[in-house]
Amino acid sequence: MEAGPMEMINRLLLQLAVILFLARVAGEVCERYLRQPSVLGELVVGIIIGPYALGSIPIPGLGPLFPTPDSSSSHMAVSSEIYTLAQVGVVLLLFTAGLETDIKRFLRYGGAAALVALGGVALPFLLGAATAWGLGFASSMAAPTALFVGAMLTATSVGITTRVLSDIHRLDSAEGITILAAAVIDDVVGIIVLTIVVSLSIGGAVSVGEVVTVAGWAIGFWLVLLVGGILLSVLISRFLMSFKVAGAAIALTLALAFLCSALAGSFGLATIIGAYSIGLALSNTELAKAVDRPLSAVYYFLVPVFFVVMGMQVNFWAMGQAWLFGIVLTVLAVLGKLLGCGLPALGLGFGRLGALRIGVGMMPRGEVGLIVAGVGLGYGVIGSDIFGVAVMVTIVTTLLAPPLLVAAFRRSQPG
Amino acid sequence: MEAGPMEMINRLLLQLAVILFLARVAGEVCERYLRQPSVLGELVVGIIIGPYALGSIPIPGLGPLFPTPDSSSSHMAVSSEIYTLAQVGVVLLLFTAGLETDIKRFLRYGGAAALVALGGVALPFLLGAATAWGLGFASSMAAPTALFVGAMLTATSVGITTRVLSDIHRLDSAEGITILAAAVIDDVVGIIVLTIVVSLSIGGAVSVGEVVTVAGWAIGFWLVLLVGGILLSVLISRFLMSFKVAGAAIALTLALAFLCSALAGSFGLATIIGAYSIGLALSNTELAKAVDRPLSAVYYFLVPVFFVVMGMQVNFWAMGQAWLFGIVLTVLAVLGKLLGCGLPALGLGFGRLGALRIGVGMMPRGEVGLIVAGVGLGYGVIGSDIFGVAVMVTIVTTLLAPPLLVAAFRRSQPG
Repeated sequence: MEAGPMEMINRLLLQLAVILFLARVAGEVCERYLRQPSVLGELVVGIIIGPYALGSIPIPGLGPLFPTPDSSSSHMAVSSEIYTLAQVGVVLLLFTAGLETDIKRFLRYGGAAALVALGGVALPFLLGAATAWGLGFASSMAAPTALFVGAMLTATSVGITTRVLSDIHRLDSAEGITILAAAVIDDVVGIIVLTIVVSLSIGGAVSVGEVVTVAGWAIGFWLVLLVGGILLSVLISRFLMSFKVAGAAIALTLALAFLCSALAGSFGLATIIGAYSIGLALSNTELAKAVDRPLSAVYYFLVPVFFVVMGMQVNFWAMGQAWLFGIVLTVLAVLGKLLGCGLPALGLGFGRLGALRIGVGMMPRGEVGLIVAGVGLGYGVIGSDIFGVAVMVTIVTTLLAPPLLVAAFRRSQPG
Repeated sequence: MEAGPMEMINRLLLQLAVILFLARVAGEVCERYLRQPSVLGELVVGIIIGPYALGSIPIPGLGPLFPTPDSSSSHMAVSSEIYTLAQVGVVLLLFTAGLETDIKRFLRYGGAAALVALGGVALPFLLGAATAWGLGFASSMAAPTALFVGAMLTATSVGITTRVLSDIHRLDSAEGITILAAAVIDDVVGIIVLTIVVSLSIGGAVSVGEVVTVAGWAIGFWLVLLVGGILLSVLISRFLMSFKVAGAAIALTLALAFLCSALAGSFGLATIIGAYSIGLALSNTELAKAVDRPLSAVYYFLVPVFFVVMGMQVNFWAMGQAWLFGIVLTVLAVLGKLLGCGLPALGLGFGRLGALRIGVGMMPRGEVGLIVAGVGLGYGVIGSDIFGVAVMVTIVTTLLAPPLLVAAFRRSQPG
């Protein structure tokens, strides 16, 4: 029949089948035999079957199942169709996390989260910029390359931590809520930092007006979404539950989550911040209880796709000769969040174990660090070697997080 | 941030939100006020907000939400990402229908279904070819153009009927099972007809070897899938339910459905035939009961996307000057299936109402007729005017089916 779309769909269904099957097998091995959350297995499966490893090997009569993308600067290691399913998955993950967060506890830990987020931005930024200068990749700590390396280290990808805490049922712990709230603030601060760094790198000076505008829209939108969502939550819940047609509650709830995610994205925030915030606003409603079970089915379908696809982005070959820089920066990326987030947490009375949990939870850079590095690559401010270093930082901080988080949460908090 | 993928995801989440929200509103209006199945509302919403209607109107700051595709010969009216979600939806629809079909009843009605399918291929083919010749679009009934018009009318798109019967809870009626079984056979016969027509149109003669090969692979694969699936169903069920990790049963079941759909597609069958057949094979297992509820959540998310996207394919402007041909062919398309499928059903003892139900249920051409027309367009055997006629046949038979089916199933069968 018509070759184009139908062949595309065949290949895509096959890719999905392989991703879903291996994700579950790896998850089973992790949980049953390794006492690790299944997300670690999904990441490793993604690395193994991804386009930079086995996926690029041609299968007779089919070609490679996950072909290596043409350009090494592309941030989509997979087709845009699979990438889309993965992104819907991470939106679902954060929306569900929002629904499961007690909003009163979220607000109670808001102040602590702000300090954790600010510490987790400032220290990694300084460490990153200093290292780029110290190892000779930039002429000063204020040089564009140094600023971008610093900005790269400020990123926090809360997806991994959310999933691990969800797997081990600790999302609503004091540390879990602080991490999620800090991730929201981190995202807002992150786009401010990126705006400043881009202004400095391109124009040579900070446009205060632009920074204020960008920050204003992002913060303004987020406040409107959260406060408006909370005020209207009972009305929204009643309206969406008034439909009689089968499956309306789940479909309409998803529509609302997607709408708020898209709006957040168009205001410069991460889509997942929109999903988390509207979930949070609806968390105490009847609707939240009604969609809990159906939502989990869609979650089990699409969330593993996100983490396998995240693993597929891993390209060990991208770093080139910058391996020493990579190793140093990775160590500093870990220490930057551990100390930058952990010390404020310690000062706020979380105790040493709590501070460790929060520091580890803020550690994964995920795709966010790569996006910042990608912007720098696009402006020609960093080269493909430093982009490779960003990949290494992402891989290590992302893969370290699940086992470290599990270990930190398994220990009981002393007195 | 990185413009490309992130902007794509924002737009896609917004499109999904609009599709899901309006699909549910239209479904609610249909069920509550018009006593029609919600799928009719979804189709109409798709037509209204699609790229050939309101969707092409630019929204300030965003551009058109569903831009008109570049080429009028494209069969994807929407982006490949939305199209993919829609296709996953229709695979889910038919997989669920398979799970809900009693396999013993399926086999009992197999013989009747074969006659219904053959009648529904032969009569529409003859009527189509004769009309193309009679109205001067082809020099004889054996001319390539006439053969393609005939082949176009043989198509059956079982998605609409499946969804309507599912909406009104009549999937497991004698007529429902006969229609689904006949659709399977229709698909196999359809690819044989298309192979013959392409051979005749291109080579001027039928390559018997090729036809036998194509038919052999399709029928052979289908038998292996169904018989193998039935024999292994208990083992598959036990294996997939042995996983302990959360959500494994639903994710692995989806993986199996996607795998069998992709395999069916690669053997020349429709992907949905693979999904239906493996669902049928598993219908009596413990697994089928375990995934019933979680599967329905994914269904409510993605199945409406398919029908809205199907509505979006509707392009009233494509027919050009061939409107008389269009009207005649549409009437014959309806009569061809009503009589071609209805008369065998009547002869087999279904009664007049049962025969009417089966004839109406086999009537929608959906995307299948368009695919055949697209192949003809690709070979240059039919022009864009006849392609427009195929669009008209598809629209009318697809939109007529839900109200006619509901009417036919609401009447009680006389003694």
